[in-house]
Amino acid sequence: MSKQKRYFLTEDDLPTHWYNVQADMPNKPGKMVNPVTKKEMTVDDLSHVFARECCVQELDQEHPWIEIPAEVREMYKSYRCTPLVRAYALEKALGTPAHIYFKNESVNPLGSHKINSALPQCYYCKQEGTTNVTTETGAGQWGAALSYAAKLFGLEAAVFQVKISMQQKPYRSSIMRTFGAVVEGSPSMSTKAGRRILTENPLHPGSLGTAISEAIELATSTSHCKYTLGSVLNHVTLHQTIIGLEAEKQMALAGEYPDIVIGCFGGGSNFGGISMPFLRHNFLDGKKTQFIAAEPESCPKLTRGKFGLDFGDEAGYTPLIPMLSIGHKFKPANIHAGGLRYHGSGAIVAELVRDGFVTAVDIPQLESFEASILFARTEGIIPAPESGHAIAEVIREAQKCKESGEEKVILFNLSGHGLIDMTAYEAYLHGDLQNFKVSEEEIAFNLREN
Amino acid sequence: MSKQKRYFLTEDDLPTHWYNVQADMPNKPGKMVNPVTKKEMTVDDLSHVFARECCVQELDQEHPWIEIPAEVREMYKSYRCTPLVRAYALEKALGTPAHIYFKNESVNPLGSHKINSALPQCYYCKQEGTTNVTTETGAGQWGAALSYAAKLFGLEAAVFQVKISMQQKPYRSSIMRTFGAVVEGSPSMSTKAGRRILTENPLHPGSLGTAISEAIELATSTSHCKYTLGSVLNHVTLHQTIIGLEAEKQMALAGEYPDIVIGCFGGGSNFGGISMPFLRHNFLDGKKTQFIAAEPESCPKLTRGKFGLDFGDEAGYTPLIPMLSIGHKFKPANIHAGGLRYHGSGAIVAELVRDGFVTAVDIPQLESFEASILFARTEGIIPAPESGHAIAEVIREAQKCKESGEEKVILFNLSGHGLIDMTAYEAYLHGDLQNFKVSEEEIAFNLREN
Repeated sequence: MSKQKRYFLTEDDLPTHWYNVQADMPNKPGKMVNPVTKKEMTVDDLSHVFARECCVQELDQEHPWIEIPAEVREMYKSYRCTPLVRAYALEKALGTPAHIYFKNESVNPLGSHKINSALPQCYYCKQEGTTNVTTETGAGQWGAALSYAAKLFGLEAAVFQVKISMQQKPYRSSIMRTFGAVVEGSPSMSTKAGRRILTENPLHPGSLGTAISEAIELATSTSHCKYTLGSVLNHVTLHQTIIGLEAEKQMALAGEYPDIVIGCFGGGSNFGGISMPFLRHNFLDGKKTQFIAAEPESCPKLTRGKFGLDFGDEAGYTPLIPMLSIGHKFKPANIHAGGLRYHGSGAIVAELVRDGFVTAVDIPQLESFEASILFARTEGIIPAPESGHAIAEVIREAQKCKESGEEKVILFNLSGHGLIDMTAYEAYLHGDLQNFKVSEEEIAFNLREN
Repeated sequence: MSKQKRYFLTEDDLPTHWYNVQADMPNKPGKMVNPVTKKEMTVDDLSHVFARECCVQELDQEHPWIEIPAEVREMYKSYRCTPLVRAYALEKALGTPAHIYFKNESVNPLGSHKINSALPQCYYCKQEGTTNVTTETGAGQWGAALSYAAKLFGLEAAVFQVKISMQQKPYRSSIMRTFGAVVEGSPSMSTKAGRRILTENPLHPGSLGTAISEAIELATSTSHCKYTLGSVLNHVTLHQTIIGLEAEKQMALAGEYPDIVIGCFGGGSNFGGISMPFLRHNFLDGKKTQFIAAEPESCPKLTRGKFGLDFGDEAGYTPLIPMLSIGHKFKPANIHAGGLRYHGSGAIVAELVRDGFVTAVDIPQLESFEASILFARTEGIIPAPESGHAIAEVIREAQKCKESGEEKVILFNLSGHGLIDMTAYEAYLHGDLQNFKVSEEEIAFNLREN
């Protein structure tokens, strides 16, 4: 009768180190390249833009364990660990023999996993004498987390929010402003990159690519200002491994080990965060866990992108990053999962997909909302539209188990809640949302333009 | 360096019984009275409206411990216990020697403490053969929790939401609809009570009092339908004592005992929930804890109301309840803390205030938002405007400690988050909110009208 539903760690059991998967990968992820000189980027090159310590972490392919600074670990303790939850009610509704667990990052400050990297990034900026930080944000989860972290460290924050997301979920801008941040819709008229984009297309809805360009431009043209990024890069994945490292200990408390680990995929931060610590055991201990990245059908870089060097942003301000991409000028459809509207995969996951350690699926928008509503009605949490993509894939796998009778253990990351996205839910309930499948021609066109 | 910040209980340590403070009160709370016959209401009388078991609990002045049904306890386990958090960052910002703890009910399903009573009320309704439930909701916290609980038990839910709250926070209606509930703004044209109110005042913004009238009318005119209530009544306070019972064990883990317990006050559900288990030790073990209810300046029934029999709703459908009231036809100002816009105190707290066990303070709206923003910027959680009233009083007490040098232990209930209330925060940041002090004349007029 009494089955344990949630697993917690004591503060003493919280991880002391992040896990740097680069050190254990059989094939190392490609290096970033200077687009002009074609040389590999060094820490010195990168630290014009990012906090230096983040650049060191970015390029570290040697050390599997990176110590979490004591001050950051203290801050983690104010909200971590997050619960590992057995989703009995969802299992029951699906009639599946699968055991479904989720790591609930939605109860973090600001409602998503993003705070896990916002804290160390702001910490390093502060340590290094930075006074201002800039960033991009799609749905606003990262921008909100960054605004809070900046405030904690006494930094000024300026956030470029993707314009369509700003319109879809105005409350997120309000949240950022509540934390004292300046928020600007991207593309904006306040940067050269933004003005160029708007000149070409005055109605451009923005994308993570455009917002990154604008934030980098502001950072590099302002003194004592650094740029921070919420996903894509290796050091962000590193910080997010706190999720999987906790989950590993919590799954042990539950007496189980995942057969399948699932995360939604935009730039890879929450997917990498939950997956890498378990993937380590595939590398080192012969485990056979499957890792599935759930991306939106409308932005299919993992399932239909091309591997190669591409810019991380629309304007081409970033170095060239070795990744799976559908082209840095790809203009994603206006789906509500704003955090997944990104054209590239980041270097680590690109390599892992090529090497067969990670598989990817693409999820239509309507399926993601259907899954989210079932999850809400069973588990009582309205998921972020991004997380809905992970849930949709969980449901697909659980249904396969129902057919086969297999009692697989499925773990997924509930990366955030969707309370700021009620407009999207309301639209879904009224039948006003649609799917957006990208044509072969569009992908080919964008890759040619690259 | 490493100070513990959050305290949790294991599932085995979760309370098995709710605490019924009525049994231990030196002076029992007054009984509800039939307005026509002037006789005390019996379980039979009340069970036309409420689930019978709730009526039994309502009138129970004998048993201090009421067992939580096994099925409800299993559901509690999917989200409880909630964290007890030491607010170090807030303490530091205030420079106070006080130790501030909060019980974080904002991480519950639907974002507030309301689910704690929604689950047992729906459970009892289901057990007793009910198929439909109705209710009122102000800010929408209760309506959202009830919608989810109803869905879990396979009941149909109809919610009357206070019209001004519906306009101030439209996302809450969307949340309720996401859980399959029917939502109607109150006053509405769908009930006699609503039509009468709108005829007298077509622009009536609604109040908890009007919404209760409409929900009761629908329940009593529909077969197999019961009314459920989110606050005010004794059985609701009973269910909410799960908060204080957990907090008691968690404070013991922290090695402390509260000198002051604070909750915001609308009808008393969250205040009673956190206070009653500690008040028990004032009654029985000679503890001297202070209990402070923080009400809005604009709806000051505890600080300026009159003790006596009054209706619980606008239309006078409820029995007469012995309480502190500013009159059941009082039309509260349109503050954003919609959950506190209620004219009466409920019987238990009315008696406790009279007997000096509970004190009350009134908080201006602007002070509540100022407090909320400081809390957000330090603890990373945007509080519900209701909870902001508790935080404002916490800050007042912490500042007194700063002046006196006393290391008091202050515990408060963070009853919910304010993510659906960003419009209010944005308005506050822009200087568009105001205070609403009620004049003596208005209170006197309303009490005369009673």
